[in-house]
Amino acid sequence: MELTVFLLGTSGSIPTPRRALPAIALRREGELLLFDCGEGTQVQMARAGLSPMKISKVFITHLHGDHFLGLAGIVQTLSLWGREKRLEVYCPAEEVERLRKYLEIPRYTITFELLVEGLEPGQEVRGEGWRVLTARAHHPVPSLAYAFVEEGRPGHLDLQKALSLGLKQGPELGRLKAGESIRLPNGRVVRPEDVIGPSIRGRKVVYVGDTAVTEEIVELSRDADLLIFDSTFAEELSAKAVENSHSTCTQAAEVARRAGVKKLVLFHVSPRYEDASVLLSQASKIFPETIVGEDLLRIEIPPSK
Amino acid sequence: MELTVFLLGTSGSIPTPRRALPAIALRREGELLLFDCGEGTQVQMARAGLSPMKISKVFITHLHGDHFLGLAGIVQTLSLWGREKRLEVYCPAEEVERLRKYLEIPRYTITFELLVEGLEPGQEVRGEGWRVLTARAHHPVPSLAYAFVEEGRPGHLDLQKALSLGLKQGPELGRLKAGESIRLPNGRVVRPEDVIGPSIRGRKVVYVGDTAVTEEIVELSRDADLLIFDSTFAEELSAKAVENSHSTCTQAAEVARRAGVKKLVLFHVSPRYEDASVLLSQASKIFPETIVGEDLLRIEIPPSK
Repeated sequence: MELTVFLLGTSGSIPTPRRALPAIALRREGELLLFDCGEGTQVQMARAGLSPMKISKVFITHLHGDHFLGLAGIVQTLSLWGREKRLEVYCPAEEVERLRKYLEIPRYTITFELLVEGLEPGQEVRGEGWRVLTARAHHPVPSLAYAFVEEGRPGHLDLQKALSLGLKQGPELGRLKAGESIRLPNGRVVRPEDVIGPSIRGRKVVYVGDTAVTEEIVELSRDADLLIFDSTFAEELSAKAVENSHSTCTQAAEVARRAGVKKLVLFHVSPRYEDASVLLSQASKIFPETIVGEDLLRIEIPPSK
Repeated sequence: MELTVFLLGTSGSIPTPRRALPAIALRREGELLLFDCGEGTQVQMARAGLSPMKISKVFITHLHGDHFLGLAGIVQTLSLWGREKRLEVYCPAEEVERLRKYLEIPRYTITFELLVEGLEPGQEVRGEGWRVLTARAHHPVPSLAYAFVEEGRPGHLDLQKALSLGLKQGPELGRLKAGESIRLPNGRVVRPEDVIGPSIRGRKVVYVGDTAVTEEIVELSRDADLLIFDSTFAEELSAKAVENSHSTCTQAAEVARRAGVKKLVLFHVSPRYEDASVLLSQASKIFPETIVGEDLLRIEIPPSK
């Protein structure tokens, strides 16, 4: 099953002609989830060939302008296109009234149900075959980090072993897969774990917007296939990172290493890094599987085996 | 004196990779005025090489999302850069509270005085050497159209004639230029109009955002050097234009012809016109001095003679 991450905007705080403001689309079975929605997201979606009509849920990390000011424009466009399907928008619980008020400002008539809900750290949102987990991010305003986690799948059935034990192809195997034990005519009981391997865990994509590093953030990132992490500053500006509750590229790499992720994307790159290779070289020393996020970069997450 | 118009975004309603949402910058002696500020304006300014730090005043036509949703992002960026100079934002009087609330939504600390003022149709805003006039636009929500008008300059002094009449170079000529009559030693009185030509009118740039055509709008456009006009639809969609209180390209051209302007820019082009040549060819038949607005197009208005 396809799981693709589109980096729509990768800049921090201020957009540049090369980097738009933070927004990440995650596509799974034609459904789009959006994580943050900076100014310019709708045109970045058009550039990426993605339709906002496919968005089912939007997850906003916090209400600094660069992370959400593209949302009302998308709501207007969807209404001009006559969307009827509900759109769900999530944000930190403390910010839900502020976000609702924002979406009421423009002079448009919304043609669909627009649900804006607040989330407490630790709360989760369920979809079809996936959940989005949350953790508190450490930033001067209420902020969340998000982990998209697919449901696990049953392990592989060892068909040869099943047949050799006396099971027959057909409904019996289905019952075993559903977790039931089967009593054979010879009285022997075959349990699912006798013929089915360990369950296959779902894929995990973690997005940590603006934050200083905390243990909660490391735990949220644990074993991610892809970790997209605040990397506003290079190592030399670590004091500035502390002052503004951001992370440096090396801190991002430390989290990736400690959390045992497969791949790290440096994200929310300060406009001062016209050439972001310094971020990459510093982070790669700590965590080699690092890339610098670039606008319109598309990352496919292969199915777990 | 330089007077340059920068078309920052020329699309109508929905942005495309080729056309950003409505925004026009007008530069005069280093001062920038902004007319409308759609989502994406700050990055379009960066592409045009214009700094938002230079903006002194912003004029918003109305609060459909595509005309103002780039403003909070600019306020955030200016605050990150530590602007101290006051920024004045004008909009239709009925919308002033709504616009103020919008600018209070993001979690930023504004570092400068942000003045948001409402204007009634006919009210004007004065700057150094110019005024912005307003007229009611005909659209489903409170809307204004704006005319930037430079102050006129005194006419040219006919020096040869002045000397032949017996005037001397020096303070006498200054007094004449200031409007004073001079009595010569021979008793004859020289009036300013005897030696100074008619005063030279200032340049005029008119921006009519979303509107159906009205007589007020034609009057506002009168004798403009440049008229930037709502041209959402081609002639074939005139019924749709009426339904949505927009103008067609041919209506825009009719206004340009009737108002006696020098040059017309078709603006607020519907995303359906990937190729806008149909708009140009229809309008040019009525008013030959027509161009289709393109993003980042820069138009210099030569000084009046």
